Amino acid sequence: MVSPMRGKRNIKITMAYDGTHYHGWQRQAGAMTLQQVIEEKIEKMTGEPVRIHASGRTDAGVHALNQVCNFLSSSGIEPLALKRGLNSLLPNDILIKEVSYAPMDFHARYSAKAKTYEYRILNRREPDPFVRHYSWHIPQRLDLEEINKCMSLLLGKEDFSSFRSSGSGNVNPVREMYRCEVRLLPGHILSFVFEANGFLRHMVRNMVGTLVEIGRGKLDCKGFQEILRSRDRRMAGVKAPPQGLFLREVRY
Amino acid sequence: MVSPMRGKRNIKITMAYDGTHYHGWQRQAGAMTLQQVIEEKIEKMTGEPVRIHASGRTDAGVHALNQVCNFLSSSGIEPLALKRGLNSLLPNDILIKEVSYAPMDFHARYSAKAKTYEYRILNRREPDPFVRHYSWHIPQRLDLEEINKCMSLLLGKEDFSSFRSSGSGNVNPVREMYRCEVRLLPGHILSFVFEANGFLRHMVRNMVGTLVEIGRGKLDCKGFQEILRSRDRRMAGVKAPPQGLFLREVRY
Repeated sequence: MVSPMRGKRNIKITMAYDGTHYHGWQRQAGAMTLQQVIEEKIEKMTGEPVRIHASGRTDAGVHALNQVCNFLSSSGIEPLALKRGLNSLLPNDILIKEVSYAPMDFHARYSAKAKTYEYRILNRREPDPFVRHYSWHIPQRLDLEEINKCMSLLLGKEDFSSFRSSGSGNVNPVREMYRCEVRLLPGHILSFVFEANGFLRHMVRNMVGTLVEIGRGKLDCKGFQEILRSRDRRMAGVKAPPQGLFLREVRY
Repeated sequence: MVSPMRGKRNIKITMAYDGTHYHGWQRQAGAMTLQQVIEEKIEKMTGEPVRIHASGRTDAGVHALNQVCNFLSSSGIEPLALKRGLNSLLPNDILIKEVSYAPMDFHARYSAKAKTYEYRILNRREPDPFVRHYSWHIPQRLDLEEINKCMSLLLGKEDFSSFRSSGSGNVNPVREMYRCEVRLLPGHILSFVFEANGFLRHMVRNMVGTLVEIGRGKLDCKGFQEILRSRDRRMAGVKAPPQGLFLREVRY
């Protein structure tokens, strides 16, 4: 019996994209999505139908600095040729940063060991036309020290049910958080960074929405801990809007 | 005889805008321009037809950090109310930063003493999806030291005919350049800054296009000086694309 894998290569792609004009990663009828645009161009180059797997599905308006995906191909195309070809075919809000061969058992989603997300808030009175697609504008001054104190409660193994979106299925809600902090960047940008072995649906945006209530003084660390322990989504704050969120890195 | 100015106020507005989605500043039939969008919203608030004068007309795709305009109004509307109202009516790629009363003889264009423009180049191998609307991507490494040396030749009173666009009319081509330098910002951004008592049509973009040839080693300072002295637009380099250009400040 001949293996269906025979003669196939597993190809890994690292890319950045500005998610502003896409209806998220995942293919859906009647809407422009990243998966669809990228699959179409790969098919154009390899001449064979393709199904790409991403490390995770980003939502509409969410960005990526280093999203990773992979696909199997029998086309024999070289990684560098694929990279150059895709970059000339794709619109300029998507950048293919790296293409390489991966072991046959590599899977962009299932092989991932950790992911890093960043969430950016523009924290000044006036909005800024130049970062409107890349941040959440909050005019009230936020208390960073208090936010950082609460964020340390998220470190380690936790049940993050309070921060998962309703209707997100039955997956195990326990994740291990490795890094969790906020700092002020030039231009009044608050940068929240979260590194964990995995994230639940809308988890970062739900956490940031709740942390903003801490920063506004409407909630304290004790209240935050109660929310975390309640494992009840209805306890947490609002979901932060998508345009502030960046998938920064996937570790394998 | 009653003066037509009687009871009128001169209102000065300072604003920022992302020029990506506009066909430039100046009103034109069948195209969305900044002047038109802003005039419409002012008319909505004051209830009277209005004609605004900007410090200068930015081209399609060009941005402003502090564009200034003024208009005469008999509406009696307060500056702060106008600022708040306009910011709620205007799309979020335009930000009204300041509204104030100005002396009746103030004119945003004719009263300007100096203007500062910035031009941004992304100088690294790979493009960047996040600054594609805010920079010119040049993959080849540019020689900054050589560019800065040539830029010092532009300081002082000069005839800038070599860097004006053809068909730009009969205005005096002599301008006084007060500041002229390039520096490297984080993220591989080369920031060119030009401050002068005035600029000819496309002057910054034509200068930057020629300075890039210096940076690539295709032209030296002697050649640059010859171009400047020739007063002949056909001698200079290509015009840099609009999306790297920012009107930074207008001094009165």
